[in-house]
Amino acid sequence: MPMTEPAADCFETDAIIIGAGPVGLFQVFELGLLQARAHVIDALPQVGGQPVELYPDKPIYDIPAVPVCTGRELAEALMKQIAPFKPVFHLGQQVSRLQRQADGRFLVETTQGVRGLARAVFIAAGVGAFQPRPLKVPGVEAFEGRHVLYRVQKPEAFAGQQVAVAGGGDSALDWANHLAGLPPQTAPAGVILIHRRDAFSAAPASVSRMRALCEQGRMQLAIGQITGLEGSAGDASRLAALKLTGVDGVTRRLPLDALLVFHGMSPRLGPIADWGLAIERKQLAVDTEKFSTSEPGIFAVGDINTYPGKKKLILSGFHEATLAAYGALPFLFPGKDVFFQYTTTSPNLHRALGVSPDLSDL
Amino acid sequence: MPMTEPAADCFETDAIIIGAGPVGLFQVFELGLLQARAHVIDALPQVGGQPVELYPDKPIYDIPAVPVCTGRELAEALMKQIAPFKPVFHLGQQVSRLQRQADGRFLVETTQGVRGLARAVFIAAGVGAFQPRPLKVPGVEAFEGRHVLYRVQKPEAFAGQQVAVAGGGDSALDWANHLAGLPPQTAPAGVILIHRRDAFSAAPASVSRMRALCEQGRMQLAIGQITGLEGSAGDASRLAALKLTGVDGVTRRLPLDALLVFHGMSPRLGPIADWGLAIERKQLAVDTEKFSTSEPGIFAVGDINTYPGKKKLILSGFHEATLAAYGALPFLFPGKDVFFQYTTTSPNLHRALGVSPDLSDL
Repeated sequence: MPMTEPAADCFETDAIIIGAGPVGLFQVFELGLLQARAHVIDALPQVGGQPVELYPDKPIYDIPAVPVCTGRELAEALMKQIAPFKPVFHLGQQVSRLQRQADGRFLVETTQGVRGLARAVFIAAGVGAFQPRPLKVPGVEAFEGRHVLYRVQKPEAFAGQQVAVAGGGDSALDWANHLAGLPPQTAPAGVILIHRRDAFSAAPASVSRMRALCEQGRMQLAIGQITGLEGSAGDASRLAALKLTGVDGVTRRLPLDALLVFHGMSPRLGPIADWGLAIERKQLAVDTEKFSTSEPGIFAVGDINTYPGKKKLILSGFHEATLAAYGALPFLFPGKDVFFQYTTTSPNLHRALGVSPDLSDL
Repeated sequence: MPMTEPAADCFETDAIIIGAGPVGLFQVFELGLLQARAHVIDALPQVGGQPVELYPDKPIYDIPAVPVCTGRELAEALMKQIAPFKPVFHLGQQVSRLQRQADGRFLVETTQGVRGLARAVFIAAGVGAFQPRPLKVPGVEAFEGRHVLYRVQKPEAFAGQQVAVAGGGDSALDWANHLAGLPPQTAPAGVILIHRRDAFSAAPASVSRMRALCEQGRMQLAIGQITGLEGSAGDASRLAALKLTGVDGVTRRLPLDALLVFHGMSPRLGPIADWGLAIERKQLAVDTEKFSTSEPGIFAVGDINTYPGKKKLILSGFHEATLAAYGALPFLFPGKDVFFQYTTTSPNLHRALGVSPDLSDL
């Protein structure tokens, strides 16, 4: 379920990380080892980035020393690893503004109105911000944001309405099941799940629940493609019906008040392209010493950067995040010497990590 | 226990990796994904390199997505990860010769007489080859290799002799316990364990066994520093006794035939320094695109290399090994195009890894 966050006063921190994928999460760790605090912003409603969004349950084999893990397990392991550093997350929102202030710090603002100030910014945005894949039907723009929705904020708002939910994945079935299962006073008058075929990629338990709700008459399942939208006769800006074309080629008209579309997410570079950073083939150009962008104090790590030899691999992002953290030290702690230490032997790092390993030795 | 390997005919393979530490092991994986076979050579008798040799049971916290693991666990995880690629190990031997052949391949020869030919060489030798730390006593050189030994090849050779074992770690106690526990016909006439203090870093079970053997009169424990060695009256090149100075400052004379010294291992760059590769501050200079040394076809990864921004971290070695594997492709498979693939989605890589993930999808 999407998490939203109220507009907050401007926070101040050491570093702002844009992107909560594996590399953004590990950036928290490397900054934490250097005693820098971090806030993390991501367009997705959950942490884990692309692996969690695109293949949460598929095995990954090339994380070093992890013979096999799923995208979800990878995110969980990283969250556990960075927990001692207490990162602050701002999820379900995109960075809409990045601006250097007179004092050299960066002001970052999100689409949810969250604002923060930091001495260094780490762009770990992967292939860009994941955006809901829009419904591709002529005239859809007239209804988007009002009667055609890609996110649900308040399910109670649909009480008494005819609602259609489009999609065959977890989000679509979770929302259809949720709406159809609401108590009568807050439930929609009718819920129709629309999918192009009678096979679903959602979790088996969600599919079973959907089938049961259909049998109980609390939900309908319609197989077909949405091929058109119709405004109300009295008010053309108000959605009144959709056209559904079945596999038999027959088009039916379904009256409805709201259409919730969950056709997956796709990435967009978005406003990052407008920040004046040097870009090569849609990637942020960085050096291989500090992984700095062309703007001092702004670093780029993971799939979003490019340099000679670059491979878009998570393990490379981990290395880049590490060197970027060290590269950012002059910005994070101007004039202060920070020494390189090992987690195995440094009492300082043990304190930072909240562990007290056995100190017996030869 | 040291593993030794008989001299073999010259093997031929795609790649030879010098060093079986974490980075050398992961180099096998990245080469394997590109369908290159590898042999691995290490001076130590076991895989795992520095973490296993120096801190096998100490926690490491900065392996990405592995919140905590010991050096031993790290090596085990990597061995499991590379198992599908069936690397061949040549342990307990150092590379003594590295020479380019007329056909462009490299001939590698070890101190055990093993010889191999490969199209590319990856030096992942960390801080250098681990060598037994020598006994620091005047005149020790005269006895080294004959009566003062740092490795044991044939324990039966000590049958009927007076043997002293020096050290307080696992190797010292394992060998002392082993020799004292041999059946009478192959056992030494006497076994004395010598350590500077009555506290041991060996595994508790080994310490208990040593105490039991001492109580049974099958072993003696002597606390003190070895301060001198004495040749035989008739043959000065033959070890006859050692001088042991106790904490009370009193020096005693212990007659003996052989002294086994296990005072740990320390690294030496060794012959690598003589191969004509560009060196900066005792490190091999590499580029950050392919991690090639100054000699085409020879790559350097992990702690042994240097480049602007270099941090001696295992996670950086993993990244370097990955880019080096791609950088070596023109040497490994001249004229062949090898495409970049992801382990999560590539059926080719699934075959190579011996896994068949669920192919169901949206």
